[in-house]
Amino acid sequence: MANKKIVVIGGGTGIFSVLSGLKNYNVDLSAVVTMADNGGSTGILREEFGILPPGDVRRALLALSTTDNKILSELLNYRFREGVGLKGHTFGNLMLTALERLTGSFPRAIDEASKILAVRGRVIPVTLQKLNLCAELEDGSVINGETNIDIPNHDGHLKIKRLWLKPKAKINPVAEEAIYAANAAVIGPGDLYTSIMPNLLVHGVSEALHKSKAKKVYVTNLMTKFGETNNFRAEDFVNIITRALNGGSLDYVLVNNKKPNLERLKKYAEEKAMFVGWDDLPPKPTPILGDFLRPKGFLRHDPDKLASTILSLI
Amino acid sequence: MANKKIVVIGGGTGIFSVLSGLKNYNVDLSAVVTMADNGGSTGILREEFGILPPGDVRRALLALSTTDNKILSELLNYRFREGVGLKGHTFGNLMLTALERLTGSFPRAIDEASKILAVRGRVIPVTLQKLNLCAELEDGSVINGETNIDIPNHDGHLKIKRLWLKPKAKINPVAEEAIYAANAAVIGPGDLYTSIMPNLLVHGVSEALHKSKAKKVYVTNLMTKFGETNNFRAEDFVNIITRALNGGSLDYVLVNNKKPNLERLKKYAEEKAMFVGWDDLPPKPTPILGDFLRPKGFLRHDPDKLASTILSLI
Repeated sequence: MANKKIVVIGGGTGIFSVLSGLKNYNVDLSAVVTMADNGGSTGILREEFGILPPGDVRRALLALSTTDNKILSELLNYRFREGVGLKGHTFGNLMLTALERLTGSFPRAIDEASKILAVRGRVIPVTLQKLNLCAELEDGSVINGETNIDIPNHDGHLKIKRLWLKPKAKINPVAEEAIYAANAAVIGPGDLYTSIMPNLLVHGVSEALHKSKAKKVYVTNLMTKFGETNNFRAEDFVNIITRALNGGSLDYVLVNNKKPNLERLKKYAEEKAMFVGWDDLPPKPTPILGDFLRPKGFLRHDPDKLASTILSLI
Repeated sequence: MANKKIVVIGGGTGIFSVLSGLKNYNVDLSAVVTMADNGGSTGILREEFGILPPGDVRRALLALSTTDNKILSELLNYRFREGVGLKGHTFGNLMLTALERLTGSFPRAIDEASKILAVRGRVIPVTLQKLNLCAELEDGSVINGETNIDIPNHDGHLKIKRLWLKPKAKINPVAEEAIYAANAAVIGPGDLYTSIMPNLLVHGVSEALHKSKAKKVYVTNLMTKFGETNNFRAEDFVNIITRALNGGSLDYVLVNNKKPNLERLKKYAEEKAMFVGWDDLPPKPTPILGDFLRPKGFLRHDPDKLASTILSLI
């Protein structure tokens, strides 16, 4: 029997947990990643080289890397701290930029980086069109650029009322094919408006998910994020995803029910990030409640708990 | 029987021919490379990061790489042509810089890069001290920095009268050990004053060569270089090397006797570079005359002709 096909849709650091967990199983993995990032090292490279944003690709590649060369992984995430021209750049972003120039295309650059990193699975840009993320806040003001939504310069208490891509973008056919062919499509975890939604807003993504026979699984976040999901409960996340999918074709929603201790929550409280609980989850999509929390360190999903739960659903 | 140990001393692009030829044989190879480069990408990284110069190391690593990933080799030599901060930087130099920061030492950075590139043999900085190359011309003027000797801003017709390192530098013990243990020590080919001599001027190098039982082989250049070796004949190269070795412990000198056709010489004439002939080579060091010229392309030594000749001497 052929391996089960799983497509993971997301970006940022959230995608790491689910990809690094699933790569240890005998599955055919695809990571469809957002192309909306325009901050930091990625933002400079976009502007100066006119390339697609490398940051989310880099993180997904590292999550799927099977190289036993630990330094190589550290190298790809290394951020220069010195040098007038280099300071702030992440080495892996520079590698993807150089490979883009050498191979002449961003997808081929990803393929070559995948070889160097011995990646299990594929990393696929959700679109091959250059775009920017825009948000309208509840006071009517418009925020341009993913990084300005991610790290608000505005009053972060204001809710995001509307989110769109500028210009509108069409799905990368390779991403479309991966979604069609999948037995499971996992959305999240990740920052709702800056890592997850910029995928779902790409024209053709919700259509492909709708047509696909894949079980659709949404992984809610462990913590809220100030400026994006203040005071959100699990059902708020689900509602927004469901709306973006034009009719709610989610099958399951994974909700963590293990509250971290106060010590671990303290650092997050400083950043106005709160534990995501739930009040009354609707019966559909089927809620899967469980302890998905990593036992130590940052409040992240446990890769293996996530992976084994996802695999139990298909 | 243990493999023969060969140490190659040099730098620049000249070292590529001899290393890439020898790596195909069953020999234990060490490349001892100059630390004098202070131009271009390397110069900026030296200044901004305070590291040893990565350029010559990168070229030697690539010469010794056995990776079948062709793009990886191209990537290491890729030079950014865009980006305010990146333009002019060579990707491999950035990799060595990042690895130096990650591992905490330049030799360890070389080891890690060697793993990534599947290097056969070792690349060893001739010294671990930071230094600059200085030259006094026949008119008494002093030129500071390797790059200003390599690419003269002064009248390139003036001869170099004296060359020294500032500050004086001591041999890297690992280089010393490689020279002691070698069955053959190959010096050159390479720019006489900017790639070869900066090694021999390091305190302990000529002493190590003197004490070593290695057969000492000097490979003369195919072409003169304007500003360094105007009108040089093979014996001029040998005399300078012999003097640098304090008494002339060279056993052999390899001299190319195949003159390239006019078509191939034309481009070089524009740069005032001439074919290196000879008038009367002394009987010692034993001259080995032969066709060492690559049949096509730039006027470079043929890696296999060099390697097989060197191996026939030990």
